[in-house]
Amino acid sequence: MSIFDKEISLLKERILKMGLLVEEQIKNSIRALTERDSELAKEVINRDKLVNSLDVEIDEEGIRLIAIRQPKATDLRFIITALKISTDLERMGDLAEDIAERAIELNTEPPLKPYIDIPRMAEIAQGMLVDALDAFMKRDAEEARNIISRDDEVDALTAQIFNELLFFMIQDPRAVSRAVKITYIAKYLERIADHATNIAEMVVYFAEGKIIRHMAQS
Amino acid sequence: MSIFDKEISLLKERILKMGLLVEEQIKNSIRALTERDSELAKEVINRDKLVNSLDVEIDEEGIRLIAIRQPKATDLRFIITALKISTDLERMGDLAEDIAERAIELNTEPPLKPYIDIPRMAEIAQGMLVDALDAFMKRDAEEARNIISRDDEVDALTAQIFNELLFFMIQDPRAVSRAVKITYIAKYLERIADHATNIAEMVVYFAEGKIIRHMAQS
Repeated sequence: MSIFDKEISLLKERILKMGLLVEEQIKNSIRALTERDSELAKEVINRDKLVNSLDVEIDEEGIRLIAIRQPKATDLRFIITALKISTDLERMGDLAEDIAERAIELNTEPPLKPYIDIPRMAEIAQGMLVDALDAFMKRDAEEARNIISRDDEVDALTAQIFNELLFFMIQDPRAVSRAVKITYIAKYLERIADHATNIAEMVVYFAEGKIIRHMAQS
Repeated sequence: MSIFDKEISLLKERILKMGLLVEEQIKNSIRALTERDSELAKEVINRDKLVNSLDVEIDEEGIRLIAIRQPKATDLRFIITALKISTDLERMGDLAEDIAERAIELNTEPPLKPYIDIPRMAEIAQGMLVDALDAFMKRDAEEARNIISRDDEVDALTAQIFNELLFFMIQDPRAVSRAVKITYIAKYLERIADHATNIAEMVVYFAEGKIIRHMAQS
C-alpha cells in the first residue's frame, strides 16, 4: 500500500467515524425526547463540538491531499465526495442538536401524547444514513440509489405528523406550544433524511463519475 | 491572462450569476407572499431548476479544473470555496422554493395579519447574501467577518415571530394552520441567513487559508 493509499484509507475511516458519531447523536436526541431525559439531551448538545472538529479535520486533510498528491479520476472523486459528505454530516449533527434543544423544552411540560411517528421517522432517517455510509465504503452505486427512493416515505410521515398535530392545536389552545415544537422535530428529521439523500447522491457520483442530484426534478 | 486565469474568472462569474439568481428567488418568494401573488410563487418554483443546473455546472467545472490544472494554494482554495458556495446557494434556492410553496397555500386563505417582521428578516438575509458574494469577489475577509455577526439579528427576529404567532394560535384556533405556516417561513429565512453565514466563513477561508467555522461554539 502506497503512502497515498494509506492517506485515502485514513480519510475514509474518518468519514465513517464521523458518520457513526452523527448516527449516535440522532439516536440519543430522539431517546432524550421519548424517555424525557434532558441530561442526555445536554450530552448531545455538548458532543456536537466533536462532530464539528471532525468536519474541519476532514476538510483540511482532503484539501491537503488534493494540493500535495494531485490526485486524478477515482481518487480525486473520492476526496471531493469526502469533502461534500462531511458537510452533510455536520449539518445532520446540527439538526440532532436542534432536536435535543426542543426535547429539553418539551421535557419541562407534561407529555402531549406518546411519540409514535417521530421515532419511526428517526429510525428510517438513521437507516438511510448508515446505509449511505455503507454504500460509500463499498463504492456501491446501486445501494446508494435505493436509499434515495426511501426519502419519500419520510416526507409522507412529516405530512402525516403535521396534520395530526394541527388537529391537536385546533382542539386545545394549551397544546399549541408543544405541538408546534413537535412539528419542528418532524421537520428536523425530514432534513436529516434529505442530507442522507445528498450523501447517497454523492456516492453515486463517486462510483460512476455522474452528478445525479436534481435529476428527479428536471 | 493565461487560459487557467480565464477559467478561474469564468467560474467566479458563474458563482456570481448563481448568487444573484438565488437572491432574486428569495426576493420574489417574499413578494409572492406579501402581495399574495401565487403566479409569481409558481415562477419561483419553476426557476429553481435553473439554480440547480448552475450548481451542477459549477461542480463539474470546479472538479475538472482541479483534475487537469492541478492548482495550488490560492487557486485551489478558490475552487474548493466555489464548490462549497454553490452547495449553499443551491440549498438557499430550495428554501426560496419552500417559501413560495407556503405562500401559495397561505394565499388561498384570508390574510392573518400584515407581514412586517418576515419582510424585514428577508431583507437582512438577502443583504447578507449579496455582501457575502461581494466579499467573495473582492476576497475581502473583513467584510466576510462582518456578515457573520449579523446572523444573531435574524435569530432574534425568528424567536420574536415565533412568540407572536404562538399568541395568535392560542387566541384563535382558526389561525393555527396559517400561523404555523408563517413560523415555517421564518425558519426558512433563518436557514437562508445561516447559509449566507456559511458562505462568509468560506470567504474567510479563501482569503486567509483558515477554516473558521464552528469557532464561536468551541
